[in-house]
Amino acid sequence: MYSLAVSDHFMIAHSFKGEIFGPAQQMHGATYSVEVEFRREALDEHGLVCDIGRALETLRAVLSGLNYRNLDELPDLKGRNTTTEFMAGEIFHRIKAQVATGAIGPGTSDTLASMRVVLRESPVAWAAFEGPLR
Amino acid sequence: MYSLAVSDHFMIAHSFKGEIFGPAQQMHGATYSVEVEFRREALDEHGLVCDIGRALETLRAVLSGLNYRNLDELPDLKGRNTTTEFMAGEIFHRIKAQVATGAIGPGTSDTLASMRVVLRESPVAWAAFEGPLR
Amino acid sequence: MYSLAVSDHFMIAHSFKGEIFGPAQQMHGATYSVEVEFRREALDEHGLVCDIGRALETLRAVLSGLNYRNLDELPDLKGRNTTTEFMAGEIFHRIKAQVATGAIGPGTSDTLASMRVVLRESPVAWAAFEGPLR
Amino acid sequence: MYSLAVSDHFMIAHSFKGEIFGPAQQMHGATYSVEVEFRREALDEHGLVCDIGRALETLRAVLSGLNYRNLDELPDLKGRNTTTEFMAGEIFHRIKAQVATGAIGPGTSDTLASMRVVLRESPVAWAAFEGPLR
Amino acid sequence: MYSLAVSDHFMIAHSFKGEIFGPAQQMHGATYSVEVEFRREALDEHGLVCDIGRALETLRAVLSGLNYRNLDELPDLKGRNTTTEFMAGEIFHRIKAQVATGAIGPGTSDTLASMRVVLRESPVAWAAFEGPLR
Amino acid sequence: MYSLAVSDHFMIAHSFKGEIFGPAQQMHGATYSVEVEFRREALDEHGLVCDIGRALETLRAVLSGLNYRNLDELPDLKGRNTTTEFMAGEIFHRIKAQVATGAIGPGTSDTLASMRVVLRESPVAWAAFEGPLR
Repeated sequence: MYSLAVSDHFMIAHSFKGEIFGPAQQMHGATYSVEVEFRREALDEHGLVCDIGRALETLRAVLSGLNYRNLDELPDLKGRNTTTEFMAGEIFHRIKAQVATGAIGPGTSDTLASMRVVLRESPVAWAAFEGPLR
Repeated sequence: MYSLAVSDHFMIAHSFKGEIFGPAQQMHGATYSVEVEFRREALDEHGLVCDIGRALETLRAVLSGLNYRNLDELPDLKGRNTTTEFMAGEIFHRIKAQVATGAIGPGTSDTLASMRVVLRESPVAWAAFEGPLR
Repeated sequence: MYSLAVSDHFMIAHSFKGEIFGPAQQMHGATYSVEVEFRREALDEHGLVCDIGRALETLRAVLSGLNYRNLDELPDLKGRNTTTEFMAGEIFHRIKAQVATGAIGPGTSDTLASMRVVLRESPVAWAAFEGPLR
Repeated sequence: MYSLAVSDHFMIAHSFKGEIFGPAQQMHGATYSVEVEFRREALDEHGLVCDIGRALETLRAVLSGLNYRNLDELPDLKGRNTTTEFMAGEIFHRIKAQVATGAIGPGTSDTLASMRVVLRESPVAWAAFEGPLR
Repeated sequence: MYSLAVSDHFMIAHSFKGEIFGPAQQMHGATYSVEVEFRREALDEHGLVCDIGRALETLRAVLSGLNYRNLDELPDLKGRNTTTEFMAGEIFHRIKAQVATGAIGPGTSDTLASMRVVLRESPVAWAAFEGPLR
Repeated sequence: MYSLAVSDHFMIAHSFKGEIFGPAQQMHGATYSVEVEFRREALDEHGLVCDIGRALETLRAVLSGLNYRNLDELPDLKGRNTTTEFMAGEIFHRIKAQVATGAIGPGTSDTLASMRVVLRESPVAWAAFEGPLR
């Protein structure tokens, strides 16, 4: 199995609901470093998992809807605790929807097998979501 | 599948038995950076894999039994070659025992699917152990 | 010249005032990794620049006044653009005040020559402030 | 499952064929950081996945055939687009061939279950290949 | 003294002339991670060393003249050994020229005191050049 | 001013004397990542600060006298607290002595201006020593 991974980052504010979150119930924020790994059984005729330029652009486009925002105010995320693991899943689904439209290249929704999204929130914590793409 | 990972480190002395270890048969030591990844199919009602604060405390508690010690002298590890891969397995089992007691939250011994423990010993080497939690 | 450096991190929300900040005028946030380097011409009788445990505790104490907060709402920072470079200076001054009280060890306000505070805000940007301690 | 991983790096020139590569069709180059993870169900009598010294030497030997070279001119790679994902696969196969000869220890071609090779090409991209060793 | 630093990377091919370079006399290449630190005694009225967006764009513009190129063929670098330390100096001078034109903000050629350019070529080597900006 | 830096690592056991060290009075150990930065005003005729191959070999040779050892038992270090900052100074002096013999190239004891040695002991602490070379 081959993998190709690209990374970028975004910076957000948010707060959590629930005593379990302690001081993180207050409005605070995070820089999230994001890593997206695309997996495929065989390379295409160019020797690629997918077009790395398009993969970076698609990641940037998906993150631009979140970057420099207060996640508590985004209609799509209303009422959710935007934990790192939740956001990893959210970004997975947003990129998967882009892949389905052919954003990272024609045919990739058939050829890409699975994807893993990792979000690093601090030097001591990260979260991930992975699942199939077809 | 969701993941949540936390990290910490510990510093130990040890020596190895067996010609295969060359100069590492001498008393020497290591700083081990430890990363523990907890995996779960679905998030809980808070949007969490598990309580990250408890996960960090549990990791710290497990490492405190090893930190600033000569592993050759610890009764639990007597007669073992405490290689990086062995220690990854050892820490896996110690954290798994904590999870079973509910240390990182009630019910997590049922909800967490698997765990991966990574120990980085130097810029050019790391080891890991992973296995199921239920 | 000897240096000893310790690190920690904190997570905050804030917004900036001024067109030059573009989308960062919106409420957003950051994880700041902080590194504090203490410098001294000669080591003390223990072979130390200063007590590393106290240095870590002092850094943690200073950051605890900022961690999980919306910087826009902190009285001390009212009306300031809490840019990464500004915060590096702010943390420098708060640690310097602690050093003056003997927080990182008796006599260190005389023996420590200078200090450098680095704040990393993302994989592509960091800021720093350095100055004398005596 | 246990893992042991070692890392090294190499520096090469190459160019790509195909419009999809844009400016990377020009002669350019890369520093590739390589990480090789060996996996095994149980440790050997020494407490090892395999001899880490031999693993590092084998990796170095395999990379020495590529280091400081123009990949476009290597007979083995003639006519191939030596993308990061292709090179991850290529290095996988070269190390697998070494494992088969006993290069990283007698019996390891039976005991090692699988291997993963990661190549990091820049702060924002990496690729990998993984597969069974027996 | 305040610092603000931004980073980016570029990928090039080149070869060196002189026996001292050993195998690096062959055509090979590198990924260079670049870090540019701007220094200034006091922050501006916005709380900034300089506009970080402009700093990133200026760095990207300077690197775009080098990225995906064979340095041996660039007229500006003809006959030079484009070692990591030489390239750090070269990029310093190119950015300094941009600062002089006001590229990273009006007045910054007066307010910025000095600059440091670091180029990382591999996990085991980096080079830097620093000098005054006024 | 130009810099060229090389890095390597070593793994040691040691213990400290003095209540200030708390649990670190016990026999424990560390992996030290070492970075040595050589500084020089102008490049040589090859475009170099110094021969990077020789710099790496010299660093490796100096570290080989410490690697896989219990520092408490080394005659040269008898009775010293081998703290990270002390070891940074010790390695500085050992490399400086090598530079004086021409180990990293003829004439470099005249041309190199200064040197900085950094030792990273854990993800949250490092120490350094810097001084002139002529």
